[in-house]
Amino acid sequence: MTRKLAAEFFGTFWLVFGGCGAAVFSAGVPNVGIGLLGVALAFGLTVLTMVYAVGHISGGHFNPAVSFGLMAGGRFPAKDLIPYVIVQCLGALGAATCLYFILNGAGAFSREGAGAFASNFYDEAVYNGRAFSLGAAFLAEFILTAFFVFVIMGATDKYANGKFAGIAIGLTLTIIHLICIPITNTSVNPARATSQAIFVGGLAIHQLWLFWVAPILGGMTGGLIYRYLLQKNEVEVT
Amino acid sequence: MTRKLAAEFFGTFWLVFGGCGAAVFSAGVPNVGIGLLGVALAFGLTVLTMVYAVGHISGGHFNPAVSFGLMAGGRFPAKDLIPYVIVQCLGALGAATCLYFILNGAGAFSREGAGAFASNFYDEAVYNGRAFSLGAAFLAEFILTAFFVFVIMGATDKYANGKFAGIAIGLTLTIIHLICIPITNTSVNPARATSQAIFVGGLAIHQLWLFWVAPILGGMTGGLIYRYLLQKNEVEVT
Amino acid sequence: MTRKLAAEFFGTFWLVFGGCGAAVFSAGVPNVGIGLLGVALAFGLTVLTMVYAVGHISGGHFNPAVSFGLMAGGRFPAKDLIPYVIVQCLGALGAATCLYFILNGAGAFSREGAGAFASNFYDEAVYNGRAFSLGAAFLAEFILTAFFVFVIMGATDKYANGKFAGIAIGLTLTIIHLICIPITNTSVNPARATSQAIFVGGLAIHQLWLFWVAPILGGMTGGLIYRYLLQKNEVEVT
Amino acid sequence: MTRKLAAEFFGTFWLVFGGCGAAVFSAGVPNVGIGLLGVALAFGLTVLTMVYAVGHISGGHFNPAVSFGLMAGGRFPAKDLIPYVIVQCLGALGAATCLYFILNGAGAFSREGAGAFASNFYDEAVYNGRAFSLGAAFLAEFILTAFFVFVIMGATDKYANGKFAGIAIGLTLTIIHLICIPITNTSVNPARATSQAIFVGGLAIHQLWLFWVAPILGGMTGGLIYRYLLQKNEVEVT
Repeated sequence: MTRKLAAEFFGTFWLVFGGCGAAVFSAGVPNVGIGLLGVALAFGLTVLTMVYAVGHISGGHFNPAVSFGLMAGGRFPAKDLIPYVIVQCLGALGAATCLYFILNGAGAFSREGAGAFASNFYDEAVYNGRAFSLGAAFLAEFILTAFFVFVIMGATDKYANGKFAGIAIGLTLTIIHLICIPITNTSVNPARATSQAIFVGGLAIHQLWLFWVAPILGGMTGGLIYRYLLQKNEVEVT
Repeated sequence: MTRKLAAEFFGTFWLVFGGCGAAVFSAGVPNVGIGLLGVALAFGLTVLTMVYAVGHISGGHFNPAVSFGLMAGGRFPAKDLIPYVIVQCLGALGAATCLYFILNGAGAFSREGAGAFASNFYDEAVYNGRAFSLGAAFLAEFILTAFFVFVIMGATDKYANGKFAGIAIGLTLTIIHLICIPITNTSVNPARATSQAIFVGGLAIHQLWLFWVAPILGGMTGGLIYRYLLQKNEVEVT
Repeated sequence: MTRKLAAEFFGTFWLVFGGCGAAVFSAGVPNVGIGLLGVALAFGLTVLTMVYAVGHISGGHFNPAVSFGLMAGGRFPAKDLIPYVIVQCLGALGAATCLYFILNGAGAFSREGAGAFASNFYDEAVYNGRAFSLGAAFLAEFILTAFFVFVIMGATDKYANGKFAGIAIGLTLTIIHLICIPITNTSVNPARATSQAIFVGGLAIHQLWLFWVAPILGGMTGGLIYRYLLQKNEVEVT
Repeated sequence: MTRKLAAEFFGTFWLVFGGCGAAVFSAGVPNVGIGLLGVALAFGLTVLTMVYAVGHISGGHFNPAVSFGLMAGGRFPAKDLIPYVIVQCLGALGAATCLYFILNGAGAFSREGAGAFASNFYDEAVYNGRAFSLGAAFLAEFILTAFFVFVIMGATDKYANGKFAGIAIGLTLTIIHLICIPITNTSVNPARATSQAIFVGGLAIHQLWLFWVAPILGGMTGGLIYRYLLQKNEVEVT
């Protein structure tokens, strides 16, 4: 169990350090910045790389909503849920702390405005002059986390081509970010959302509940849909 | 069969939600937008990820033109064609409906102008001041769908390195979008085209026929070319 | 042999249609264009996808310099060289013809200026105000084709992890384009260079020799280096 | 051993020629330039491609900090360390020399300003008006190299899905560049840093120590963490 928790700690650290780090250091550089596409790739690739690095140890969740979803999908024991969620949050917080120190080394940390640091938001016009309502933000986070867990369930199904699961799962997170950064800055991961909100405070803390509730409900829905509609029912076979 | 149709439903939902969603939410954001490259990646990666998630259930078509093409190529039974096409259209429509609600949550849905929502077009100067004629648009959609089905036939050939088919197929869709968005907004998929046209109406409905005819003819041509020119004729071996 | 030549024809067609097509239709679209990064991905992914689609038939060269290089590396019989090179050029020419017709459907074909259509060049300041001399262009094309064939030799070595060769080879072509488009518009492939030069004429024809000589010499050098310095000498083992 | 050293020479040559080459030729081209995202992909893909090409010969380090880290992780014999580091530096220097000649073929080599050629830096406001302090730069290089070696250790663990290691390792280097180019121009590789500093001189030489010390300490830390916290202790099993 210690090895599993260490794997989840370092994996979630890497997800936040890589994904949020790309966002805060490189997204908005004039002319040569990596933009939202670069951030979407960074988030997806952190998961892809860590699934191949430590997936054989912990299963490679790095996200409380994934742990909830896989529990609902019958792939993860309920008794491991709390420890997994705790170390995921600690890993995310550790990464946010390091990002904070590096950013401060250039005097560039700021908690001004929605989406500061790499915090999540709704009902705020951060990109393109569009403010997405609470309902729209909830629906987007819910659907995207549902598909995230759906793909994880499918790609690791025993009838699937399982060695490629890390690629499918990581790139699904990239797709999710390609859609949702202008809507909520994309959470689908309560640990990632919390790690940023704690440093930013204010509105980010106020809106944090949505980035726990929507991803967890979405993840569980995705797990249940795959389990009961897609998965081969072995009882029929017998 | 229910599991197969569910797989095609969710797979096509994901294709439209991911690909068209990236286009409507993130492509045109000033300075940090994902642009046409991000949209091309989103479309390709939805297919890549879903092939690994549910390809083992339904074969992973997510596109009526692919189902027609594989039927012509001798890889898909004609009796399954109509049910597959119906659920693909329903999945695409479901995704378009969700995109519509989210977009409306920011008051940003519009049916003005060619290419509104993520609809397809020809003979309209949407990008770069160039309007491609009906003939050019038809030729582009025809050739690209032909190659799409050709790659699917080849990558899933029993002599091929079949476990990598999902990567090859998904990234072929990315290439297709890298070429064709400025020409027609890239359909190569009648279900995807229809799902957008229904919400936009007007010109998009008027031009919709091309995005059924050209991809289906192209897909069948690609399937036939691979089958009769490239595929090993087992009779020779016997 | 017919199947092999058909595979090389369609593979090279796809390389030119996809790579040069992305360049002429999508690279320079204002604000949302795919830029040189999108073009580099398009070229690399055409090779990646076709290696998995028809590599099991023809070996997947799609490039005269690769055929020469693999012959020098002892992996390809000299007697097949001429037929391979001929169908590669025909495939490239077929693709260029289709691109020409589609582009003309928007009245947008032009032979003005170095790099018109997607032709190659040297000694011309096309990008960023820099004109690279004949020597610099030759050196770049030579080194890059040498590494291209070197990677092909290594990734398909019988001691290598050969199923991933398509990924390694395709993405090597992406790297090559990430470096060399501003220098020569990147050839490393005489068939690709010729297909564009024929439509553009003038300077492109005049400079075409370099895009045959440098890639072929580079490819052969890469093949020889891998063969004699890196490859395990089986005689030692006996 | 000669084959191993040749593999490390050509691999590191490719890493610097591809990664730094993409940076100096293509990153800053107006409107269509590949930007920092393109540079990040180029660096990562050079490693991905070379791991599949020559990883079966030398292990595919191409970086002194990786060799140190794998030695600390118990995966690389100390007696091979010095020869590996020497040929890595020679390969990097060879690539930098070729880049220098090609760049000079357009009269475009310059040693002016921090980050000239593709040199590393700290405490300089090269991108976005932010100058990261020595401490911030050290922390970033240390953490990123630690995770780089951590992923290498994990992805090549005998219980892992080892054939995908090249993909995981290469894309980890891409993530690293997505974060760190605005901070230090990203080294995590003393051979790469040295090859550029030698041509640029001045400040780049003055600051070069950090790009040896931080990556090597980070790499060794990553190797030790994986070895003692994550790796399965076989003694327990017996």
